[in-house]
Amino acid sequence: MADDRFHVYDTTLRDGAQQEGLNLTVADKLAVARLMDSLGVGFIEGGWPGANPKDTEFFRRAQTELDLKHAQLAAFGATRRAGVKAADDPLVAALRESAAPVVTLVAKSHDRHVELALRTSLQENLAMIRDTVSHLRAEGQRVFLDAEHFFDGYKRNPDYALEVVRTAAEAGADVVVLCDTNGGMLPDELGEIVSATAAVGARLGIHCHDDTGCAVANSMAAVKAGATHVQGCANNYGERAGNANLFTVLANLQLKWGYDLVPPAALADMTRIAHAISEITNVTPNSHAPYTGVSAFAHKAGLHASAIKVDPNLYQHIDPALVGNDMRMLVSDMAGRASVELKGRELGYELTSDQSRNLVEHVKGLEAKGYTFEAADASFELLLRDTVNGERKRHFSVESWRVIVERRPDGEVVGEATVKLHAKGERIIATGEGNGPVNALDRAVRHALETIYPELAALELIDYKVRILEGTHGTEAVTRVLITSSDATGEWATVGVDENIIEASWQALEQAVTYGLLRAGHDLT
Amino acid sequence: MADDRFHVYDTTLRDGAQQEGLNLTVADKLAVARLMDSLGVGFIEGGWPGANPKDTEFFRRAQTELDLKHAQLAAFGATRRAGVKAADDPLVAALRESAAPVVTLVAKSHDRHVELALRTSLQENLAMIRDTVSHLRAEGQRVFLDAEHFFDGYKRNPDYALEVVRTAAEAGADVVVLCDTNGGMLPDELGEIVSATAAVGARLGIHCHDDTGCAVANSMAAVKAGATHVQGCANNYGERAGNANLFTVLANLQLKWGYDLVPPAALADMTRIAHAISEITNVTPNSHAPYTGVSAFAHKAGLHASAIKVDPNLYQHIDPALVGNDMRMLVSDMAGRASVELKGRELGYELTSDQSRNLVEHVKGLEAKGYTFEAADASFELLLRDTVNGERKRHFSVESWRVIVERRPDGEVVGEATVKLHAKGERIIATGEGNGPVNALDRAVRHALETIYPELAALELIDYKVRILEGTHGTEAVTRVLITSSDATGEWATVGVDENIIEASWQALEQAVTYGLLRAGHDLT
Repeated sequence: MADDRFHVYDTTLRDGAQQEGLNLTVADKLAVARLMDSLGVGFIEGGWPGANPKDTEFFRRAQTELDLKHAQLAAFGATRRAGVKAADDPLVAALRESAAPVVTLVAKSHDRHVELALRTSLQENLAMIRDTVSHLRAEGQRVFLDAEHFFDGYKRNPDYALEVVRTAAEAGADVVVLCDTNGGMLPDELGEIVSATAAVGARLGIHCHDDTGCAVANSMAAVKAGATHVQGCANNYGERAGNANLFTVLANLQLKWGYDLVPPAALADMTRIAHAISEITNVTPNSHAPYTGVSAFAHKAGLHASAIKVDPNLYQHIDPALVGNDMRMLVSDMAGRASVELKGRELGYELTSDQSRNLVEHVKGLEAKGYTFEAADASFELLLRDTVNGERKRHFSVESWRVIVERRPDGEVVGEATVKLHAKGERIIATGEGNGPVNALDRAVRHALETIYPELAALELIDYKVRILEGTHGTEAVTRVLITSSDATGEWATVGVDENIIEASWQALEQAVTYGLLRAGHDLT
Repeated sequence: MADDRFHVYDTTLRDGAQQEGLNLTVADKLAVARLMDSLGVGFIEGGWPGANPKDTEFFRRAQTELDLKHAQLAAFGATRRAGVKAADDPLVAALRESAAPVVTLVAKSHDRHVELALRTSLQENLAMIRDTVSHLRAEGQRVFLDAEHFFDGYKRNPDYALEVVRTAAEAGADVVVLCDTNGGMLPDELGEIVSATAAVGARLGIHCHDDTGCAVANSMAAVKAGATHVQGCANNYGERAGNANLFTVLANLQLKWGYDLVPPAALADMTRIAHAISEITNVTPNSHAPYTGVSAFAHKAGLHASAIKVDPNLYQHIDPALVGNDMRMLVSDMAGRASVELKGRELGYELTSDQSRNLVEHVKGLEAKGYTFEAADASFELLLRDTVNGERKRHFSVESWRVIVERRPDGEVVGEATVKLHAKGERIIATGEGNGPVNALDRAVRHALETIYPELAALELIDYKVRILEGTHGTEAVTRVLITSSDATGEWATVGVDENIIEASWQALEQAVTYGLLRAGHDLT
């Protein structure tokens, strides 16, 4: 089990689930829990049993289906209702029945919230805390208390806020978690309040939201001021601006402050875990996320690439391998020869000086027309190969294509494409239908080539991005299309540019198929 | 012009442009500059003239096409090359020729970078700084100096790092900007280093990256320690984890610390500006972004809604109207009746209760499918009119359309569209040719209607934006098209959504023409 001296507490499945557009099934929740457990967190707050039927189900199934190696499950809930005994409150009963080893109770610690939202007295609120905490302790569960709106409450009425902390601790709460529920705090003031609260003598935790863009910094300020329990969510999930990104906080504490929180091998799995969770939640990952984002260690400017060749640490704050992220080089209109050489080497080619120079000129020229290679590795590699080969070779050559899209009088919209091409000495004509012009072209190409190249059956067009690039005064706008394709073993991206969106799409598609065939072993000598 | 005592310095167009997937044309850059100027920032770093041809062009065109009200343009560049006189260095010359009132020079302040990346001596590096700064000052430009890798450099060799600051300031740099180039710093340590550096007596600035998730907190720690110049990018753009989000920093400084940086009316426009910039960059906005994200003040119904009715401040850290993120600005899927009524009134319609409610339901339903009305006022107004009229009335009704795009054997790509429609009792068939499918459709519609409605000659399709919206589990991706049209007196935007990009474009086009005819006085009774 994880070390109890410092708590890494994951609330992805409860507070994180309040994110707009996030809807997890029980199976999803179990899968996320397994992933966070493999990261080595100490606690996984599975939900609010009793209040949320899916969560009641989660805790029930967890008993037989979840085999946690590091983490303990925590059930979240509220203190008993005003005027009702803890033992008689059905929601409190649900917490007991969840069989979670830990219960985290949320309680008001802001006097105005007690009065206006709960509509009870300040004293009764303290009794609610005292009774519920001691009741659950007596029943054998470990109790943490989330002091809701703590910092706003402390600023308005510090005595009452501290009284809440004291009451909870004396009643047996192992940790009192100070929550910046509205997310409006900044690190210095928050740190001061945590320090002042530490005087009560209770073990403190911290729970931050990112409304001022300081959730991570706030969490760390609290730790510096004495908190030994940090809450957050995977991938900065959560309502509004999200909860503190637990991955960022974990990496900062372990790699910057030397805290020994999770096994290094688990930390080195963090990027994979972050992305695996995105797949389950179906929330598009933030490519910019610190440590785990696909761009987190991606260098673009030519300025940096030459330095990286000398010493990677000159331009990286940590070794990306520590968190399981790769360093990637981007080729862009800021790239110089160094980037191109490095990129070439990354792809397995050693370029001569002349070849580098020619390729750079070629890339810059194409980029001035609107091409971008940083998001289209496969197109770049084809260019590279053409440079190394000294000529442009392909598996098939296209004679012509035609796309028809029509909206019929009955309102139905249909798309059809016909391609005429030459491959392996044959002239082939094929037609495809689709829900859009590019889809139809894609099908037509496949029909044309599938007999000669059966491996194309595994090729799938999985993403299509379009961008209209405004021309300057007097010149036409051009369209840039980026296509991402996949086969059984990986993904690749290709780019096409033209005034005509279909032609631009065709270019990207033609390269995607070519690259797919290369991946399938059909070399071009 | 903005107050010079505290600098809000925008580097979206230079450092922000280093983001993966971000590729701005010169026209895009000018548009972004205008938006940031309207926010009231003090400086806009337009790019690196001389090193980047697009940026050279930007500064050239800015002289006649950019009419800045608050900000000054800054040209970014490097100190002269080792062993060359500043006056003889062509890249330094490009900075002079940019005619920007401000030049921001980047210089090494980390000894290892000087030795390994620049491959020159520590003394020569100081000379490079001294010469370039004084040269540009003598030539009449104001100079700021970006001390690259300052914090890492200070930790390794504090004396040298401070010597760089001193040298730059003595040579005439008005501000020395301490850059956390690798983004690895945390706020406390960064604040201490800024304090120590303040002892040199130079005016200090701060430039942070988000690799530890603390860019905003780091920027604020620096300000607390004495920095009076803050750099950042719109929407957290930038390489790797991005630059400090300038919007977040600005809102924090002004709303939390009471700094008087931009006019309150400008701050109240910040959310609109943030989203307008996303439309230009075509980078999907982060719905979670503090202050400006669409979710930033979105409260889950239930728990919070009743409290909000009592006192909004119970659950919000600031009044969202202060940053323009309230429901009165946008019609969105968080819209309630109040927004729609206000929007209707804004457009000159008084809606009954029932009409408001129906319209809201209709808008929400459409938005769930991918429509967005915040960037498509004309489409919203047509919806409104249909609601008020009780039915959908148009000047023409379409029987069918067909688009053909082909690439001929000689390589030529041609587009043709045929439209069959009814107008003023006639059935009309017309064909148009174009360089793309949408262009061809546009011409076909005009041909069809121009005899009946000669005013259509003034209608021009001036912008076309496409975004592919990923479907959720099991549903198809859809394409959203936004078309901006203009006539002699103004512009309007319309939206279309469909799986098929041509059909989506058709919808936006059909509405654009309808709205254009309304503007020309052809009412629909």
